[in-house]
Amino acid sequence: MSILDLRIDPDRLRADFEDIASIGATGEGGVTRLALSNEDLAARAWFANRIEDAGLVLRDDPIGNISGILPMTASPTDRSLLVGSHLDSAINAGRFDGAVGVCAGLECLRTIQEAGLRLPVNLEVINFTDQEGAWQSMLGSRGLTGRLGDLTANRDTETLSAFRAALHRTGIIVGDLHEMYQATRPPEQVAGYLELHVEQGARMYRSGQRVAAVSGIVGRTTYLLTFDGVAGHSGTTALDMRRDALRGASAFITEAHDTIAQRFEGGIFNCGKVNVQPGKFNTIPSRVTVLCEVRHPDETVLEHMEAHLLGMAGNAAARFGLTLTDRRVQHMPAASMSGAMVGHIETACARLHLPRPPHLLSYAGHDAQMLAPFAPTGMIFIPSIDGISHNPAERTDWEDVVLGANVLLHALIEAAQNA
Amino acid sequence: MSILDLRIDPDRLRADFEDIASIGATGEGGVTRLALSNEDLAARAWFANRIEDAGLVLRDDPIGNISGILPMTASPTDRSLLVGSHLDSAINAGRFDGAVGVCAGLECLRTIQEAGLRLPVNLEVINFTDQEGAWQSMLGSRGLTGRLGDLTANRDTETLSAFRAALHRTGIIVGDLHEMYQATRPPEQVAGYLELHVEQGARMYRSGQRVAAVSGIVGRTTYLLTFDGVAGHSGTTALDMRRDALRGASAFITEAHDTIAQRFEGGIFNCGKVNVQPGKFNTIPSRVTVLCEVRHPDETVLEHMEAHLLGMAGNAAARFGLTLTDRRVQHMPAASMSGAMVGHIETACARLHLPRPPHLLSYAGHDAQMLAPFAPTGMIFIPSIDGISHNPAERTDWEDVVLGANVLLHALIEAAQNA
Repeated sequence: MSILDLRIDPDRLRADFEDIASIGATGEGGVTRLALSNEDLAARAWFANRIEDAGLVLRDDPIGNISGILPMTASPTDRSLLVGSHLDSAINAGRFDGAVGVCAGLECLRTIQEAGLRLPVNLEVINFTDQEGAWQSMLGSRGLTGRLGDLTANRDTETLSAFRAALHRTGIIVGDLHEMYQATRPPEQVAGYLELHVEQGARMYRSGQRVAAVSGIVGRTTYLLTFDGVAGHSGTTALDMRRDALRGASAFITEAHDTIAQRFEGGIFNCGKVNVQPGKFNTIPSRVTVLCEVRHPDETVLEHMEAHLLGMAGNAAARFGLTLTDRRVQHMPAASMSGAMVGHIETACARLHLPRPPHLLSYAGHDAQMLAPFAPTGMIFIPSIDGISHNPAERTDWEDVVLGANVLLHALIEAAQNA
Repeated sequence: MSILDLRIDPDRLRADFEDIASIGATGEGGVTRLALSNEDLAARAWFANRIEDAGLVLRDDPIGNISGILPMTASPTDRSLLVGSHLDSAINAGRFDGAVGVCAGLECLRTIQEAGLRLPVNLEVINFTDQEGAWQSMLGSRGLTGRLGDLTANRDTETLSAFRAALHRTGIIVGDLHEMYQATRPPEQVAGYLELHVEQGARMYRSGQRVAAVSGIVGRTTYLLTFDGVAGHSGTTALDMRRDALRGASAFITEAHDTIAQRFEGGIFNCGKVNVQPGKFNTIPSRVTVLCEVRHPDETVLEHMEAHLLGMAGNAAARFGLTLTDRRVQHMPAASMSGAMVGHIETACARLHLPRPPHLLSYAGHDAQMLAPFAPTGMIFIPSIDGISHNPAERTDWEDVVLGANVLLHALIEAAQNA
């Protein structure tokens, strides 16, 4: 059989996919596998078993990334070409997000192994820790690439204690958070990174595209905004004496959505979490915290959006006699995919007699965003039905998953041959 | 000594007030004594001890109201004239709200007892259960007056289980919630009710009034509004496909505040609690619940306000593709105070050489609201500095507390003599 005819085993991939989808399955057909939760631990154990079943070399690192190596060179710890994604999920999220990339990566390695293909670099399928940010977004890929920054910055003591406890419970660290900095690999040890992922948007589904090459990933900045007013009895505090933190926060949320949509083309705003204190129906809210984010493919425009957002929050606070405190919780810089990797994906599509894949920008963050400045990185997108994601109704046609896995297989072989 | 010269003991009142203020004291100078919490249990035990120390007859009922009776007739369980308020508090609320009325009521009974005054009706100082509504607003006064309604209506199973557990723990009931209906007294057993309370607004403080007679209490309706949209990944869900529950809820909150202030003079709106699900920065909110209330002194206008509010919520939901569910959680009808009791308060003020007290409407709910349709009821207000309440900074000049307690004493004697 020619290498050109090599294909993954769709039934074996499907069995793995269904297995992982059953871990943390929710009533509505989604999954909840928050990083370091019991469900995530079960998924990790399952993945380690699958790696060993496949005869790959199991590897883990001090930040909990789990990988399986198909050795091609003298030692399994030599330089490797990474392929994978993440098995953790958001709350009651979709079964495809992340899991498709890990399962397909594993299936690619098994397929190459069974074909007896010799390549000049080790292949390594990897499950990155906490991509979704139950604790800290893209923790594993940041750790591997030396981009952890200060793990304690902008976090309160309680959150850090809980984080440490969760890491201890999983056995990822036994002492201090600092142990995780040991996960960083020298860049020369990583030949590249490929990730297959569902688009999570509706562009491909709407236009009938089945495979796309990601050109870049938008930058994202998360803010925690705190509006502080004065509590008071809602019945007796005269209107002119009220400093209602929720009025300021609500006005800001409404205005931010309207303004970002109008002024910043390609910009995204979301406010996903609001906390109201003291939280009683008959007490004027004294403090409201708003967790929100902005995204844009251009770092300069993103900075502009951030400044505009803080200005709007400040104005809303001033209008209702509130004080505003802002905390830039996290910044994920915009990233470009490697031209070489995009080329390998195009080559793979050509081999599979597919049209030349469109180049799409990703509006979601991915581990590839962290790998991109570190090693040649490429991403393959397959369509999400109706663009639904982070929702139990997230779906991708199974045929597209198989097709994406085969594109991944050939892109991986191409990348390895050119590594 | 003439009865006209009778005065309460300010030092003894102060000692009681400081005692109770130390139970559940917060770092900021306020108190947290949520009904049925450990702090509330401590306050109840303290009150029962003070009743016994004073040589009064301790009484409790199947809804946890605790009272001390100064018998004047053949039996302590004969008809009685009630005086009191509540010892429970909101979260990190003021030390005066409720506690002043209970402590002053107790001090009045001790003063009358020591003076050897004979009156035609038993006097009973009472601490009502859960006025603030940690579980169900004005539970104790509703129970005593037979206005409990359906205790399980509009409550989910979890909330009811927790409520039952808290009641079991306190020993208020040993079995089902239904036991609490036994607390209802026949109206002929209650000769009347008097309550001293801080105004919780700024009207008296601003105009320099030291004592006021409450003419009526506004009606209040609480709603739980649920805005349901669709969760989605915030980065990848196109703007035209979003059904963001928080956008609808924020728009409603802003509009409701603006409209109620503009259209309904004397009307009050507050939104005190908001819950956002799933509560992740990068997931479009699928469900937002909003706990809010409207108040108005006129029942008909209040109904109008409610209809208008639901209309606005429905419009906001429709604008963002959401569905709205509304639940009328609680309705406390507007109440008028007894003309006779207002007269006794005026007489008391005259005896103390005070100007004729202004008649004020109460925008806060009080146990007196429940007692008013049941027995002749009167309320005395004393000023709140800067009108601050439900806040640890709540304050009333101690001289005003003493003055209010003396007005209460003489109003109580007048009411008892005319009972």
